[in-house]
Amino acid sequence: MAELNNILVANEEYSKSFKYGDLRGPPSRKLAVLACMDARLSIKDLLGLSTGDAHIIRNAGGIATDDAIRSLIISHELLGTQEFMVINHTGCGMLTFKDEDLREKLKEKYKANANGLNFHSFPNLEQNVRDQVDKIKSTPFLPKDIPVYGFIYDVKTGKLARVV
Amino acid sequence: MAELNNILVANEEYSKSFKYGDLRGPPSRKLAVLACMDARLSIKDLLGLSTGDAHIIRNAGGIATDDAIRSLIISHELLGTQEFMVINHTGCGMLTFKDEDLREKLKEKYKANANGLNFHSFPNLEQNVRDQVDKIKSTPFLPKDIPVYGFIYDVKTGKLARVV
Repeated sequence: MAELNNILVANEEYSKSFKYGDLRGPPSRKLAVLACMDARLSIKDLLGLSTGDAHIIRNAGGIATDDAIRSLIISHELLGTQEFMVINHTGCGMLTFKDEDLREKLKEKYKANANGLNFHSFPNLEQNVRDQVDKIKSTPFLPKDIPVYGFIYDVKTGKLARVV
Repeated sequence: MAELNNILVANEEYSKSFKYGDLRGPPSRKLAVLACMDARLSIKDLLGLSTGDAHIIRNAGGIATDDAIRSLIISHELLGTQEFMVINHTGCGMLTFKDEDLREKLKEKYKANANGLNFHSFPNLEQNVRDQVDKIKSTPFLPKDIPVYGFIYDVKTGKLARVV
């Protein structure tokens, strides 16, 4: 429970000066972002967003998994977002291992069959961004003309570079 | 492209005073958070986190989908997180529709078979938090004793209430 109490104290402080109680559900800037879960990416800060502006979807790698696409469909269809951004980043952990090696490690550690697990590690960052944008664009349940941008965020400089 | 240029200008500004270039990949507070993508939740702010502190995984609803569990396994196994938090929130869009209704709507709009889509809408917020915590705890590829806390965030007050 190392962090639990710290978190609760910090949240108590946050709620004391809370000013977002009137915000409604649909993101005010009609934007949905799919990004990596990496701790170095503070999405709201690096995009200059405010609370209430955008849906933020995150997973290991910033991958357009079926689950991320589920979230984008809900985001667009029920909450009106009109632009999507995919953000991967330099120094991503997903570049440092292979799925089969992690499956082996888990199998050994937990004595359970890990064959069905797909971790979506990838060897090429720029290609990975392109692949995720393509996957979103080929989803049958999103409008063909919705803009989907792809970026690489540099964790050393804080800069976004557009790929797609 | 309504927001693209705004975002790029804001990021340019962010990078000018960037001070996180020396952070490493593993989250410094060994924490991983699974939360809803809702625009009203600024996870770093409401938990009092700094850039580099925690993995943040987000999807529609804050659901422990297979993809979220993939991310948690990578987070723990490869990047050393030791505590997990699940955050759902009041006023969640996932309480306002039924999967079957959204499937019908998509089928009609896109003339494609939406039967395979599971959107994970839910009728009871507190039960949903419990279910996600249980799902994480029953994952065979995470340590049985890793703490998994469950919370409801109140979008009207900014306060977290612990459920599990």
